[in-house]
Amino acid sequence: MSRLDAAPPGPAEPVLWVDGREVDPRGPHLSALDRGFTLADGLFETMRVYDGVVFRLDRHLARLAHGARRLDLTLPTGLEAQLAAALSAAVARGRADASLRITVSRGVGAPGLAPPTGGAGAAGAAVTLVIAVHPLPRFAPSLYSSGLSAILASGRRNERAMTAGLKTLAYVDAIAALAEAQAAGADEALFLDTEGHLSEATASNLFAVLDGVLLTPPLSCAALPGITRAAVLELAEEHGIEHGEHVLNPGDLHAASEAFLTSSVREVVPLVRIGARPIGDGDRGPVTRSVIDAYAALVRGECARLAAR
Amino acid sequence: MSRLDAAPPGPAEPVLWVDGREVDPRGPHLSALDRGFTLADGLFETMRVYDGVVFRLDRHLARLAHGARRLDLTLPTGLEAQLAAALSAAVARGRADASLRITVSRGVGAPGLAPPTGGAGAAGAAVTLVIAVHPLPRFAPSLYSSGLSAILASGRRNERAMTAGLKTLAYVDAIAALAEAQAAGADEALFLDTEGHLSEATASNLFAVLDGVLLTPPLSCAALPGITRAAVLELAEEHGIEHGEHVLNPGDLHAASEAFLTSSVREVVPLVRIGARPIGDGDRGPVTRSVIDAYAALVRGECARLAAR
Repeated sequence: MSRLDAAPPGPAEPVLWVDGREVDPRGPHLSALDRGFTLADGLFETMRVYDGVVFRLDRHLARLAHGARRLDLTLPTGLEAQLAAALSAAVARGRADASLRITVSRGVGAPGLAPPTGGAGAAGAAVTLVIAVHPLPRFAPSLYSSGLSAILASGRRNERAMTAGLKTLAYVDAIAALAEAQAAGADEALFLDTEGHLSEATASNLFAVLDGVLLTPPLSCAALPGITRAAVLELAEEHGIEHGEHVLNPGDLHAASEAFLTSSVREVVPLVRIGARPIGDGDRGPVTRSVIDAYAALVRGECARLAAR
Repeated sequence: MSRLDAAPPGPAEPVLWVDGREVDPRGPHLSALDRGFTLADGLFETMRVYDGVVFRLDRHLARLAHGARRLDLTLPTGLEAQLAAALSAAVARGRADASLRITVSRGVGAPGLAPPTGGAGAAGAAVTLVIAVHPLPRFAPSLYSSGLSAILASGRRNERAMTAGLKTLAYVDAIAALAEAQAAGADEALFLDTEGHLSEATASNLFAVLDGVLLTPPLSCAALPGITRAAVLELAEEHGIEHGEHVLNPGDLHAASEAFLTSSVREVVPLVRIGARPIGDGDRGPVTRSVIDAYAALVRGECARLAAR
């Protein structure tokens, strides 16, 4: 369980665990025949670590387990113990505030799409597990106050894909949409599904306030079942903010008084412009501010409770 | 340019080149932070090598270059020279008949979707190049004679995806569809696009013979611009087989007298059953046989011509 190399990781480098042991972040770590690399045959979760505590780890692991069942991917034994060990090492190396990504792939495979056959332990059938803990400061005040701009991506999300709703490694469409947004001078891209309904951003869920009601697209519009999305819906319920899942059209963003994006890493970030057109008055609004504050309090409360155990 | 390890690869092992040098196929070779692994941010091509000659290498490289432009991915300098060196090594190691896969990813990246910035040579901006040459016997007579069965996949292909038509690393949907087919006792899965038109199989293009005309779905139905697909259309033209690109519906397969799948690795393979229902008389038909023979002759002719240079 010791590093391959004596040098500690640089300040921006991750603490990196591959298949159960800490490794030199410079690598190499993986086979070029790993199906995660050759075919995106795997899943991941990205979580936030606050003061050494992973926020809603149980929800992330449940989503990962669900995806693994759907893809018939056997999760590594001792995943939680490996995660705990990696987290301890990361905290010891000054990464108590961090992003933590777990990546699981189906491991090394022969050419073609068919997975390696044979039971656990069969040659070539071992999954690959990567845990990467990158330092990440708590909260990002400037992002929260100024907000983001977005365009509508030219390509569509597919709500009827084989892996719709699963957090697979296949993010190249999101990368292309983000590049399109940045080329247009925007921060983010929003996807429509194949029916023309709003889906989500490249790696965040979308919320909009319409007639005072906080709405987010249903999962049937190819929105990922975000852990932060679920937390925001819970908070709205608790705080008496009228809310719900609702099919949204692009025109609804013009009518919206506020909008924001949610993800584990970004938390809750105001979305204040679509193209050149402001959403509401182009500033973060009262509902967004309430949700940002409530989310910060939720994080503080849950993490303090877990840290005290 | 020598192997890291003295042992030659085992008989089923690939000859493997990573970033310009031959490596031990057992690895490791890649960083766990490679965007090919974490985000499917890359492209690939799979080609057939016959007697040490790559069939239609120029077409594969042109498709790769097109994809790289679309994804703003800089292909490695000296790609063709590296390919030639890898191929020579493979032939020297008894892999004159082989599949050859080139994989290019955007290389190591920080967390998140945004690609590493900075010009060529900037830290983290180096692409990863993998060349894998797996031994593969010439032709597969049993496959050609008995043919394959397919189901319709439960999930759809997205003809309006950001990366539609590009051979990106995102194959997890195809893997899930193939697993679904195999669970149903079939060999393959055919995708419909989001409008319900036939698209292609998990990694092959689809052809069907309807009223004596050889038809294949247009690229607008989320069919990949297959190199073998294009060769078959050329051969149909040459041999006076009436043919064309045409939007096909699932019902057309019931009406079809013949069908087959094409890919570089599989070449031309009869598709003889959809679920329990035979296509035509459930055997490979005369058009399919003509195309198989013509394709074999094309391969022999082109490769012999190139080998003689």
